[in-house]
Amino acid sequence: MANDNTAVLLIHCPDRPGILAAVTDFINQQKGNILYLDQYVNREDHVFFMRVEWALDNFIIPRDEIEDYIDTLLAKRYSMNFRLYFSDSKPRMAIFVSKMSHCLFDLLGRYHAGEWNVELPLIISNHPDLKPVADQFGIDYFVFPINKDNKAEQEAKELELLKQYNINFVVLARYMQVLSPQLIDSYPNRIINIHHSFLPAFAGAKPYHAAHERGVKIIGATSHYVTSDLDAGPIIGQDVVRVTHKDTIESMVRKGRDLEKIVLSRAVEKHIDRKILTYQNRTVVFD
Amino acid sequence: MANDNTAVLLIHCPDRPGILAAVTDFINQQKGNILYLDQYVNREDHVFFMRVEWALDNFIIPRDEIEDYIDTLLAKRYSMNFRLYFSDSKPRMAIFVSKMSHCLFDLLGRYHAGEWNVELPLIISNHPDLKPVADQFGIDYFVFPINKDNKAEQEAKELELLKQYNINFVVLARYMQVLSPQLIDSYPNRIINIHHSFLPAFAGAKPYHAAHERGVKIIGATSHYVTSDLDAGPIIGQDVVRVTHKDTIESMVRKGRDLEKIVLSRAVEKHIDRKILTYQNRTVVFD
Amino acid sequence: MANDNTAVLLIHCPDRPGILAAVTDFINQQKGNILYLDQYVNREDHVFFMRVEWALDNFIIPRDEIEDYIDTLLAKRYSMNFRLYFSDSKPRMAIFVSKMSHCLFDLLGRYHAGEWNVELPLIISNHPDLKPVADQFGIDYFVFPINKDNKAEQEAKELELLKQYNINFVVLARYMQVLSPQLIDSYPNRIINIHHSFLPAFAGAKPYHAAHERGVKIIGATSHYVTSDLDAGPIIGQDVVRVTHKDTIESMVRKGRDLEKIVLSRAVEKHIDRKILTYQNRTVVFD
Amino acid sequence: MANDNTAVLLIHCPDRPGILAAVTDFINQQKGNILYLDQYVNREDHVFFMRVEWALDNFIIPRDEIEDYIDTLLAKRYSMNFRLYFSDSKPRMAIFVSKMSHCLFDLLGRYHAGEWNVELPLIISNHPDLKPVADQFGIDYFVFPINKDNKAEQEAKELELLKQYNINFVVLARYMQVLSPQLIDSYPNRIINIHHSFLPAFAGAKPYHAAHERGVKIIGATSHYVTSDLDAGPIIGQDVVRVTHKDTIESMVRKGRDLEKIVLSRAVEKHIDRKILTYQNRTVVFD
Repeated sequence: MANDNTAVLLIHCPDRPGILAAVTDFINQQKGNILYLDQYVNREDHVFFMRVEWALDNFIIPRDEIEDYIDTLLAKRYSMNFRLYFSDSKPRMAIFVSKMSHCLFDLLGRYHAGEWNVELPLIISNHPDLKPVADQFGIDYFVFPINKDNKAEQEAKELELLKQYNINFVVLARYMQVLSPQLIDSYPNRIINIHHSFLPAFAGAKPYHAAHERGVKIIGATSHYVTSDLDAGPIIGQDVVRVTHKDTIESMVRKGRDLEKIVLSRAVEKHIDRKILTYQNRTVVFD
Repeated sequence: MANDNTAVLLIHCPDRPGILAAVTDFINQQKGNILYLDQYVNREDHVFFMRVEWALDNFIIPRDEIEDYIDTLLAKRYSMNFRLYFSDSKPRMAIFVSKMSHCLFDLLGRYHAGEWNVELPLIISNHPDLKPVADQFGIDYFVFPINKDNKAEQEAKELELLKQYNINFVVLARYMQVLSPQLIDSYPNRIINIHHSFLPAFAGAKPYHAAHERGVKIIGATSHYVTSDLDAGPIIGQDVVRVTHKDTIESMVRKGRDLEKIVLSRAVEKHIDRKILTYQNRTVVFD
Repeated sequence: MANDNTAVLLIHCPDRPGILAAVTDFINQQKGNILYLDQYVNREDHVFFMRVEWALDNFIIPRDEIEDYIDTLLAKRYSMNFRLYFSDSKPRMAIFVSKMSHCLFDLLGRYHAGEWNVELPLIISNHPDLKPVADQFGIDYFVFPINKDNKAEQEAKELELLKQYNINFVVLARYMQVLSPQLIDSYPNRIINIHHSFLPAFAGAKPYHAAHERGVKIIGATSHYVTSDLDAGPIIGQDVVRVTHKDTIESMVRKGRDLEKIVLSRAVEKHIDRKILTYQNRTVVFD
Repeated sequence: MANDNTAVLLIHCPDRPGILAAVTDFINQQKGNILYLDQYVNREDHVFFMRVEWALDNFIIPRDEIEDYIDTLLAKRYSMNFRLYFSDSKPRMAIFVSKMSHCLFDLLGRYHAGEWNVELPLIISNHPDLKPVADQFGIDYFVFPINKDNKAEQEAKELELLKQYNINFVVLARYMQVLSPQLIDSYPNRIINIHHSFLPAFAGAKPYHAAHERGVKIIGATSHYVTSDLDAGPIIGQDVVRVTHKDTIESMVRKGRDLEKIVLSRAVEKHIDRKILTYQNRTVVFD
């Protein structure tokens, strides 16, 4: 939490001998004190992934030139994809909700308690129901009712609002609308959804009904980045809870709510902490 | 375990007031000491399920007439489906295997240690590989190689063998052949399979490959009764284990083996203890 | 949820043949439609436990006489301890908090969403910090700073307030004070605490520090009824989460928060639903 | 599994900038192809931990000089503790058992299936009961009955036998004797025990009885290295399973058996794969 003044570098590139040494040497030589280092090599596809976080206190390169240095000294040499973040630049998050409040309360409770290094200025909904909750927490709430005819138009307005509020990523907290590709493409790997099943089982609508019908003994929840392929984007996290023959659809819904909010909030936390890399529709999630 | 001389009665029937009282009154009045009683009412479909086990020591009705009495006094009156078992009549189990030994060893280890009230006289395989293991434990092992052309013929021989050995139920311990309806229909809800995924996700062949490809964060195993619909029979039990981006297909297979054997053995134990009822392609599994 | 007009009867008594039949017969004959029935017999100590819920719509006995009838016809005959509740009489709950908000937000979120059949009119704290949260949800909040000298006096005021608000049970939502016997005895088995460890491991203060020091690979949280023996009351529920060598005390605290709030809220839900019986410092918790 | 011809280097040392780069540079420059690299820095105590595995095919330094080179070029410079292993040199394991067979069967099943890169030539027991199992698997089995008077003498013989069989590490598979310091000190961090509770809860004898008495809702098992402090050595792994009020001591024992064998075998696998480092009575266990 609250590391004052650190940089986070996320990298993925073709695996070659020496990358790890090159990156750590670069940071060490510039007097950066490495705080966390995680790396992973996918041996099947020969891809190198890395997350390194270092203190900027004595770092020699001026902050606004770091990206250039990395690009020149490392990225070009190793064909790296990289992203650079600074801990004092908080990401800005928007939440989309419909009528259910359990995920929203969980997110707001954490935000309010200062658990996360994030700004949360905006909530968007297709229903007015949860406006009082937003008011309670002092967050702007906009309603865009959606139907078949107005969807494109309403989403265009939502997108405008997201830009106006300088939103970096979006959290769908049981938002009961499928987003259109236009909106999704504007936030690639930056829209987090919670699906109330253990994906890929029971994708689509009414997963608890389907789980009950099939007679499963465990139900789950799945957080994932949204892609244009419904419920098929890169999975960030999953968790499960046991059910028995005694569970009704209603009791599954009740047990599922706890899963959904925890699984969603964990994914949001990983995203805020810049610990997620995506690759071929899968995620690398560092501890 | 090892209750000397008990009866187990499994019932399901349309729910009506008074069934529970009628059954317990019947046993009490005949001087049966109830040891375990589990009941469950499905409120949606109005079905009553019950398992009751009582000591036979002072039971007034002679053992070989109990079934008649239940039929006359209870079953006809309440339109019951019922089954009656005696603890001193051990069920006889056969195991089908292919080449993998982990589930087989787990079953044999428990059998050898006397954990279960069961006889295990027969192992059938489509490969000779595990014969030494069967020999080691002193259990008959028969090989029936299966190909497209001889399947019906070989299964007919297997069925004959099952009858010859008076087998009551069959355990598929990672048996890599799909059974034909003829064999399945001879043992309705009495063939237990272990599928190496969290069903209904990844039914069919190579579930670990599919799970790896999809990038899931949890893998599972599912025990179920075999029906003619592949991997779609009533689920008995499920369990899961976490995986991460670091897991390869090979490491998933390794983690999965532990799940498979435990989930299968738990299902076999519940079956031996007569704690499973099936209804509309789902199971009621009492504790 | 929202059963209109039901009665819940909780029983425990010495086990004898016929109790189950007697209770269900009584309800059936008086035209009560049984909705849920759970029973458990402790075979070691020969104790019978039961929870039965039935619809009152056509029940013949007038509501205010039911207790008398049960007492006369059943309780005296079978030496029963029993409690009778009506679903339309909501229990009234008070929350005690200190400075941490995660459990409080979880409870308030559920209350606000109407998940529980409960009234929540009162929050008591030894610090003023969370008053804005209480205000936000429109709940009365009183501050009683506690030190060695004023403890008895302050608790006396708290107790008075609990009575004034007609509080039926108390939830300690990470309340960082040990209650004195006087307060505990006023709410026997009606004060629910959350302890941030897997009891009985790491009872007392700073359990995450102790867990880290010991190098455990799993941490837990435990909900229990408060008795005068610190962290040693009847356990209601427990849950765990994996940790590794990478986890610091800080990250354990973070992971633990999610456990604490879920484990506490589940216990509160069971209590509200009258599904918990206590016996010899242990609980019977029906599904 | 079965990587032909790899070296594994385990390191821990005071943390300093440049260690990671120095080690990986060394391997890269000598034409070692790094297959797996795991590192972890304990920020509180400033200790660096690392496990690196590389293919020896084109490695320039001759195999029997590698240790010297590491010592000279890296270990002295960075004050490293290090251990070097070669994958083609299988560790040799002995198992100690008493009368219970479940852990033994699990270990033997895996060994027999070739899951592990290990030799298993020796089983030692204080009882003759499991000799037939050892015979079945063709492994030498020696019986040393232990009582108060002969303990030192018998352990001396066991120690001799361990040396005679060139045993590298010992697995206590529910061995019901406390080892004396002399034996423990001969195999520091190389004796793995399974304790049938979630340590540090219920250390010592009869943990399931204690768990039942306390009314816990989850039971566990813990694998750890044996130290002279009973049940207090570095924890390798833990797992848990839910229990309810319905569970008797007997059913806890039954559920616990599955935990015990899986948790023990996982620890043995990590040890065989040289993925465990110990530090201040805690373990670093790499994935």
